[in-house]
Amino acid sequence: MIDKLIAKIQKTHAPVVIGLDPMLSYVPEHILKKSYQEFGETLEGAAEAIWQFNKEIIDKTYDLVPAVKPQSAMYEQFGVSGMQVFERTVAYCQEKDLVVIGDVKRGDIGSTSSAYAAGHLGKVKVGNKEYAPFHEDFITVNPYLGSDGINPFIDVCKEEKKGLFILVKTSNPSSGEFQDRLVDGRPLYEWVGEQTAKWGEGHMGDTYSYIGAVVGATYPQVGKVMRKLMPKSFLLVPGYGAQGGQGKDLVHYFNEDGLGAIVNSSRGIIAAYKQEQYAKFGPEHFAEAARAATEAMIADIDGALQGAKG
Amino acid sequence: MIDKLIAKIQKTHAPVVIGLDPMLSYVPEHILKKSYQEFGETLEGAAEAIWQFNKEIIDKTYDLVPAVKPQSAMYEQFGVSGMQVFERTVAYCQEKDLVVIGDVKRGDIGSTSSAYAAGHLGKVKVGNKEYAPFHEDFITVNPYLGSDGINPFIDVCKEEKKGLFILVKTSNPSSGEFQDRLVDGRPLYEWVGEQTAKWGEGHMGDTYSYIGAVVGATYPQVGKVMRKLMPKSFLLVPGYGAQGGQGKDLVHYFNEDGLGAIVNSSRGIIAAYKQEQYAKFGPEHFAEAARAATEAMIADIDGALQGAKG
Repeated sequence: MIDKLIAKIQKTHAPVVIGLDPMLSYVPEHILKKSYQEFGETLEGAAEAIWQFNKEIIDKTYDLVPAVKPQSAMYEQFGVSGMQVFERTVAYCQEKDLVVIGDVKRGDIGSTSSAYAAGHLGKVKVGNKEYAPFHEDFITVNPYLGSDGINPFIDVCKEEKKGLFILVKTSNPSSGEFQDRLVDGRPLYEWVGEQTAKWGEGHMGDTYSYIGAVVGATYPQVGKVMRKLMPKSFLLVPGYGAQGGQGKDLVHYFNEDGLGAIVNSSRGIIAAYKQEQYAKFGPEHFAEAARAATEAMIADIDGALQGAKG
Repeated sequence: MIDKLIAKIQKTHAPVVIGLDPMLSYVPEHILKKSYQEFGETLEGAAEAIWQFNKEIIDKTYDLVPAVKPQSAMYEQFGVSGMQVFERTVAYCQEKDLVVIGDVKRGDIGSTSSAYAAGHLGKVKVGNKEYAPFHEDFITVNPYLGSDGINPFIDVCKEEKKGLFILVKTSNPSSGEFQDRLVDGRPLYEWVGEQTAKWGEGHMGDTYSYIGAVVGATYPQVGKVMRKLMPKSFLLVPGYGAQGGQGKDLVHYFNEDGLGAIVNSSRGIIAAYKQEQYAKFGPEHFAEAARAATEAMIADIDGALQGAKG
């Protein structure tokens, strides 16, 4: 799947992932109204609104980008109905040939990690049959529990040709509370990054490992260090746009081959119509606004990468 | 909710939580067969089997223990159908007046953590209505992202009178890879524990904070240190039984008031009928075996605590 992700990045010239993190407050009134008319102001109604919102954004952007990243929390908040729409969103994106990164940040140990891996990336056996419940292509995982937590995910990735992005340095202001603490003179995230590179070594696609890392856009100096520390690991970079990162800050997250990173924007794209810059589209054309914001983001990042080359 | 947990521990003399972590391999053949006959070898069929298994164990043990801990992964592996049974299990346990600790180990930042908190502990607003999707009483959360990740959960706990157990030192062999790394001469888990105690300070029940910590049973010396470091934090202690911990090793996880910790056993209870010691019950009476194993665990831990007093 890492090879597919790379091929699609090369084809689209867009090392960009759209974060499908819908909040009800992003969904335009006309969609909410229709959905509530059909299902009432219920969890089903909310989930249906989210689904219609997602679908229109996917329809208007799938040809521009290689990948999407639905955020599990935004679906779980609507309970079982929300998880239904999570699954439906994954399936629909895959129909559109998008690579789907499930931002689930799961992490546990042993048989429990195996169960998460089966549910999200692999298959579960029921009697003599097998099912792939949520069937994302990649997921994000939390490393705090160490190798016992990661290896069961890697085993499933190997089997299913899927991949992981392991949280190394997150984009939020307080990420430093634990991640930046010095261990033998180096911040913890470097140790986690180094370990992630080791986990990745035996699990290579054609040019990059399918065990990648999450490194936030909001700490460009960290990106530069991590890029060198884990040259074969793909970096998933959150924190662009709404959280403050810009294309010019991100060139060092990439290798000289122009690859090695994929930058996420969520709110900045899916709720673009709420920004002054894209307000002209109006709520009726929220998905066109998302497309315009995606194009602007691609131009920003691709421009910065081309500039860095020249 | 921490006060209810404590009152129930005092009433039952059982600082014990049953981990509802069902794997299909634990479910006796007669339940599987019935469920597959009704729903086929499908995810629904698997989920129904898990539900029947849980229900019988709950019916046979609810009067012995204050709390249960369903492990999200074991339900997510069966997709949406699994999550339905997760919700149904939470609801059924609450009908039986059990405190439910959702072992979800979620962790993200800002609005994403808020969404997880709403979905698992709080309420989500849909139009003018409010819903409590998975409605656990406590959940486990991962601290790797720092305060930005934890505070949104705490806000919901405060509002809803619920609680958290933050992963501090987990019970698995490789937990030390990152958790034990020395930061200014002290292992990282001590810093996380100290921070957890701080998070808990402003969020007190009558005698203990509703912001607790996960500290594994497999490292008794750590338990002793953490008990002192976070005197007002309740400790959720996994790793009893199947993972190796015993009652006598656990006395130092408790304060002198005999409180302050609750010990989890999952496989050791719910799959007790597969152990030699309880094999006499047979698969037909798996839930009686679970009850016997629960009684033995309570006797082991309560005995050790009484012994420590005397």
